[in-house]
Order: sequence, then structure tokens, then C-alpha cells
Amino acid sequence: MTTLAPLPYSVQWADTHITLLNQQALPSITEFIELHSVDDVYDSILTLKVRGAPAIGLTAAFGVALGAKQETTSELGEFKKNVTRHIEKLASSRPTAVNLFWALKRMENTLQAAQSISTAKEALVSEAKAIFAEDEEMCRKIGEHGLSLFTRGDSILTHCNAGGIATARYGTALAPFHLAKERDFPLKVYACETRPVLQGARLTAWELMQAGVDVTLISDNMAAHTIHQKRINGIIVGADRIAANGDTANKIGTLGLAILAKHFGIPFYVAAPSSTFDLSIESGTSIPIEERNEAEITFIQGVRIAPENVKTFNPAFDVTPNHLITSIITENGIITPDFIKNIPHFVN
Amino acid sequence: MTTLAPLPYSVQWADTHITLLNQQALPSITEFIELHSVDDVYDSILTLKVRGAPAIGLTAAFGVALGAKQETTSELGEFKKNVTRHIEKLASSRPTAVNLFWALKRMENTLQAAQSISTAKEALVSEAKAIFAEDEEMCRKIGEHGLSLFTRGDSILTHCNAGGIATARYGTALAPFHLAKERDFPLKVYACETRPVLQGARLTAWELMQAGVDVTLISDNMAAHTIHQKRINGIIVGADRIAANGDTANKIGTLGLAILAKHFGIPFYVAAPSSTFDLSIESGTSIPIEERNEAEITFIQGVRIAPENVKTFNPAFDVTPNHLITSIITENGIITPDFIKNIPHFVN
Repeated sequence: MTTLAPLPYSVQWADTHITLLNQQALPSITEFIELHSVDDVYDSILTLKVRGAPAIGLTAAFGVALGAKQETTSELGEFKKNVTRHIEKLASSRPTAVNLFWALKRMENTLQAAQSISTAKEALVSEAKAIFAEDEEMCRKIGEHGLSLFTRGDSILTHCNAGGIATARYGTALAPFHLAKERDFPLKVYACETRPVLQGARLTAWELMQAGVDVTLISDNMAAHTIHQKRINGIIVGADRIAANGDTANKIGTLGLAILAKHFGIPFYVAAPSSTFDLSIESGTSIPIEERNEAEITFIQGVRIAPENVKTFNPAFDVTPNHLITSIITENGIITPDFIKNIPHFVN
Repeated sequence: MTTLAPLPYSVQWADTHITLLNQQALPSITEFIELHSVDDVYDSILTLKVRGAPAIGLTAAFGVALGAKQETTSELGEFKKNVTRHIEKLASSRPTAVNLFWALKRMENTLQAAQSISTAKEALVSEAKAIFAEDEEMCRKIGEHGLSLFTRGDSILTHCNAGGIATARYGTALAPFHLAKERDFPLKVYACETRPVLQGARLTAWELMQAGVDVTLISDNMAAHTIHQKRINGIIVGADRIAANGDTANKIGTLGLAILAKHFGIPFYVAAPSSTFDLSIESGTSIPIEERNEAEITFIQGVRIAPENVKTFNPAFDVTPNHLITSIITENGIITPDFIKNIPHFVN
């Protein structure tokens, strides 16, 4: 029997408001907040209460629908001008979020196509719901394809949070675990804590526990010993950007795990929607790696853990070369090497 | 020109007391405390103000000398009984510390051999100083042999704290860096922070900064990307126990680094005194791995970083198989494979 996993939605449309999981309060406090205005939505994105590119896009789309519903003018031109202002405001909340702009562009197109205020209000709510449903369906498909690679009783290692709370539902790398739970398909998950920002400890462990998935948390440097001692059967991670040859940029630490997978002879899977591919980039060497604030290394939640003035190196991502990747799991199916040849069949 | 590195001693004999670096207060506060009695010495070991097997042994040995000096009885039998009580008390401070028992046994033998109270007091101080000088000399030799493997301008990665503050001076894995500094031999050091207890961030970064060594701190999971991006030339770590075949138990995370070294084609060195070998153990599979409290993973310095009741796996050590080790650096020289054949030539 299939039952829906009890994973909480991170973003929910509630007609008069948006209900949002406050990811900033996790894992100590599980708090859902109500967003009652475009300003509320803007603040929630700006202050990182919602994180994960798809979830940010969804929140902004619902924000536009909410703002439109609250407009009182009866003049269509003024209505469109006002809603456009909401869209512009929301677009300025996270200036580098591609997914945010993409979702807002869809809302903008819907707005401009409307012939009356009442149809516009309905159409904007429908469009935001459609974006949500499409994301949920895409994640479910990634989960289906991913789960087909696992065997009952497998122990699987993951890194960072490519999870349901970063998307409409299910997530990408975590989607197979949520589907497995719905189907009583036994899996054991090991989650790396993912220093420096600890997304694995704070978010993945929390999300999988909420969903009733069997999850065990380890420090990142325990991965090698854990793979060996706990007989890990495979590693699955998300992706921030995938080049045309399959080279994958993802959260720092991913490259090390791929090397461990090769050493121990276990598969290394990348799970990501086809929109993650950037076919204009030939290989991973062209992907720029953001270096972040040293305080992420020297402080943990406000507590100093390293000497003052110590030099640090804090790359946010690393690039895993294609030859270390067993396959890339997308909503359109599982891509296997030769990646350069096969990727175009799965990516538009 | 050779100048002594400005590395602070963690334990110093000061005639009327012992001066101890309070390693518990690092890295926020650099504090030296004075131990004026056997009780002070016992407390400092019990509360982990001093850590590192050699440093603990040295502190206890000086503690016996201090306790003996403070005895006021003029009856030799009573004197020996009282000092024996000090030795027994100090032996109970850390029940699994082999080095502590070894140092106290030497003090006990010195005590029993003495023919008068005054010669006993002198002999005990001399013996503690001798233990200290021998440890310093051993570390210096490890440093000499280790430094012979590096080239000017090399970038070297290390893990945990096999440092001067854990020994009389210089340390083991860090000894080559301190000697290089004394000789204006340029090296860049990358220190892994070493979750969960953060010895790399708290101690190694601090110690090397104090000594003026060029050190950069990274999170453990940045090692792969750093080796690649920063062109790391080699990795050097300490050891807790080495089997007869060279398999090495060391701080969790060491195994992963050894696998990365092999993948990137750089040497992986273990630095340890010959007393670290346990020739009664044939291979690493017989070395038991201590699992520690889950709070080390779920809290950092009192701050919760993971959900309540999350399952954890917290192995304190891992075992690096001999085939991943380029060479083992001891005070008696550099051991290269075939380890099974060569180790007995360097270890008594």
C-alpha cells in the first residue's frame, strides 16, 4: 500500500496567505509562519526563511498571486502596474536566484495575458499552483528513477540537503528516500553533516526524521570509515550546475565523496532536474567556484571555534569530474556515460 | 641561521611549581596556569587542561617531583610511602593513558632506588627532566626526518593535532613545520578542522600561528578540492597505534585523506615515535575503534546543530591500510614499504 510520506511541505498556498516552513529555525524549532502580504514574502526570502532554488521560486510565485488578490483597484491598467511592482520587488530579494526569475517571468506572462482583473487574479493563482505541481511531479519522477537503482535494505550516503524542503515536495537526491518510505521499501540513509553551513545536520537529518526515514548523521570526515564499516551501497547527491560533459558542481565535499565511491567500488549518483544542465559550459573547469566568508569556518552558530585572524579557505562548491559519476538521474530518465553523447537526449 | 621556534611549551618545570598551557581555553584564550600541588596536577589532567599522551606523562612526572619536593617528613620510609601515594593518585587521573603509566613507572623506580630523602628529591626532578628532554629530542628527530621529505615552497596538508603542545616540544606530524620555521625553510600548511572535536581548528591552527608557520584552516570536506586547487604536495598525520604491517589507527578522517592522496598521486606520511607501534597486532583489522558520545556530533561547544534524538555514528578513529601509506616517519628514521619486513628494523 502506498501512503503519502508525512514530509511537511515547505511552501503551501492557503488562499488568504502562504504557509511557510521557517527553515532558519531548524532543527531546534519546527515553525510554520503565515505570510499575509508581498512584504512578508519578500522578507521571508531575504532573511533565508525559505531556501532552495525551487522553493524560493514557488514562494515568490505564490507571493505574486497573493499580492494580486489583495489589489482593490478596478482599473486593469493600474492593476497590472501594481502587480508588476510586486514582481519587481520579489525579483530583488535574491539577486542571483535563476529559478526565482524564471518563476516570476511565468507570473508576469500570465499577468500580461489577462483581459480582466478577475480573470487575472484567478489565472495568477492557477499559474503559481501549476508551477508548484510541475515541480512536485518532476521531483517525484527523479525519485522514481533514483529508487529504481536501489535494492531493498541498501544503505545510501548523501550530502548537503537536496531535499523536499528545498522544492515543492520530495526534493532531488532525497526523493528516492521519500518514495521508498511511501512504499515500505526499506533503506538506511547516512547523512554527512556538511560543514561549514551544516545543511546535512540541520536540514537533511530533520527532513528525513520527519518523514520517518531511517537516517544516521555523521561528520563529513567519517564518510570513508562509514562506507567501509557500514557497507554503504551507494552515494547520491544533488547538483548546482552540470556541464555538457557531465562534470558536476555541487556543495563542497561532493568531490571527496565521489573519490571515496570510486575507491570502495560503489556507485556515485547525481540527482537533478534537467534544468540544472548548462550545455553552454563544455566542462567543469569553466564553472566558477564561489569563495565565501571566513566566519563560516571560524564560527559555528555564533560560537568561535578557531583562533582570531586565522587564514581560511572557504570554497562553497567543488566540481566532480564526469569519470567519477556513475549516472545522472533526471526527471527524463537516468543518464549514463558516455555523458557527452547521452546528455543531449535528456536535456532540452 | 637557526632560531628556536617561538612555539610555547605546554608543560614547563619551574622549581616551585609547574607552568601549564590550559589547552581547554584554546583557541579563544591563551592562558598559562601554575600547578602548585599534586592535587593541582591531578585536576589539570582530569579536566583535560593538558592533553596529548606525551604531555600528560610529562605533567604527571613533574607532578611527582613537585609532590616529593613538598614532603616535610624526615623518615625515608614514610617519604617513599607518601610519594607512592602521589604516584597512585596521578595514575588514576586518566585510566587508559599508557604513556602516563610509563612515565609514572619511571618515577616510581627512581623513588625506590633512592637512599635518602634529599637524593630522592633531586633524582625525581632529574628523572622528570630527563623524560622531558628525551621526548623533545625524539620529536626533533621525527621533525628532521620528516622535513627531509619536503621541498622548499611545498604545501602540506595535516589533520587533527599531532603537535608540539601534545608533547614536550615540536610534536610529531607538526615537527617538520616547526623545524622548517626555525630554518627559514618555506612551507605552507593546510589544517583540516577535524570534526567532531575540532582539534585542527582549535589547536593546530593556534599552535602553528603561535610559531609563525603559514597555516590555512579548512573544513574537513574541503580537502579534495583544496588538494586539487592549491596543488598540495603531500599529507602528514600522526598515529594512535600502528600494527606490525603498518596499518595505522589515527583520528577519524585520516583514512579519507589517505584515499585522496592516492587519487591525486601525492605522498601520504604518518609521523609517530617508535613506541606507537604495537607489533603484537598483526594488522589494522584487530585494532578496536572507540565509538564516542553522540553529543560530540549533535552539539558544538554547547550549541545544538542537529535535531533532537537523531541517530548518529561517532567513531573516534579509523584505520588506514598500509598500502595507502607512502612512509612512516619515526625518530629512528623513515620506514618505507615493504612495511612488514622493514618495521622491525626501526622498532625495538
